[in-house]
Amino acid sequence: MTQPDDISPLALNRISVYLRCLRHLQAEGVSRIASQEMARRFHLSASQIRKDLAYFGEFGIRGVGYDVAHLRERLERLLGIQRLHPAIIVGAGNIGTALALFPGFHSGNFRIVAIFDNDPTKVGTELAGVTIRHSHELAPGIEETGAEIAILAVPAEVAQENYQALVEAGIKSVLNFAPVQLELAPEVRVKTVDLLIFMEELAYFLQ
Amino acid sequence: MTQPDDISPLALNRISVYLRCLRHLQAEGVSRIASQEMARRFHLSASQIRKDLAYFGEFGIRGVGYDVAHLRERLERLLGIQRLHPAIIVGAGNIGTALALFPGFHSGNFRIVAIFDNDPTKVGTELAGVTIRHSHELAPGIEETGAEIAILAVPAEVAQENYQALVEAGIKSVLNFAPVQLELAPEVRVKTVDLLIFMEELAYFLQ
Repeated sequence: MTQPDDISPLALNRISVYLRCLRHLQAEGVSRIASQEMARRFHLSASQIRKDLAYFGEFGIRGVGYDVAHLRERLERLLGIQRLHPAIIVGAGNIGTALALFPGFHSGNFRIVAIFDNDPTKVGTELAGVTIRHSHELAPGIEETGAEIAILAVPAEVAQENYQALVEAGIKSVLNFAPVQLELAPEVRVKTVDLLIFMEELAYFLQ
Repeated sequence: MTQPDDISPLALNRISVYLRCLRHLQAEGVSRIASQEMARRFHLSASQIRKDLAYFGEFGIRGVGYDVAHLRERLERLLGIQRLHPAIIVGAGNIGTALALFPGFHSGNFRIVAIFDNDPTKVGTELAGVTIRHSHELAPGIEETGAEIAILAVPAEVAQENYQALVEAGIKSVLNFAPVQLELAPEVRVKTVDLLIFMEELAYFLQ
């Protein structure tokens, strides 16, 4: 079995995309699909699909294709999302609120189990079915809920201190929306989503 | 001079990060910086900085470093953001609203010049200083404002038709937040930001 660090983030992201396609197909009642058909329907590359899946020992049968249910289960296990991942949101501003209400974060194998903010007017109010707690309660909140993933949606100036608090409270992974380079703790994985960088990438190709 | 397609999106994203650091340094009144000091301050790799900048013909002077103002200007020109890029948002839901209020999209070289939604209760109301217009007015709205970049923040089910409308209205680049594989028009660059994929990537590394 391939170990977690063997696979590049880009390949991982393709696996996520395939998984989404397979769920879609299963919901439609499709039980088998060939790589060509999957590529055509979802605007992907058939040879890339075959290559990626073969890397994990999954081969379609010629003229028959892949077993949709089996492949879905296999990819979910591969991504580690066959079980539920409780997640928290730190910062109930515009981005934090949008993420709390984002359907994908309440479906499948992710669940927002707690939301924190340091604004006393927000503490105690409800957001996406969760009562907002004060940031001071981060550590007990993480312990109670068993949360593993934190979504960091605070202003840039306070991102580092909030990240530090998450590390100390035992969070294992952070999805960071603050446009800063965090000083990272080696044991906590961070994925930074910097929206301005996406815009700059698009601007580059406008030239 | 290096042409737009020579550079990988990953390298481009690093250039964006360097640019952000340089702006920060300039705001602090720093006029020269060595790669080691820049790496230390912003948690980057000094050798990667030198390698990336050398690729564009920029070399720091030994013991003196890079000229901050010159390098900033050079990188802005490289990214094509020395001029203003008018952008629109399609979909004034939670994500669209958060993006409209995101400080980065109203500063530097990006400006949200129009916002569209098909909900009549939202049309005519103001968001981030912009009056929301009906999606039917997409084509004239893009023509009037000269917008080049569209941020697509609509539900997955209607993402393709909205994308199509943007292509027909002459938009050149799309930042897509709908979790779907769009069928792409060759002349329009698309960057899809799929929030669930980031969560799945983090879940993978929790194993």
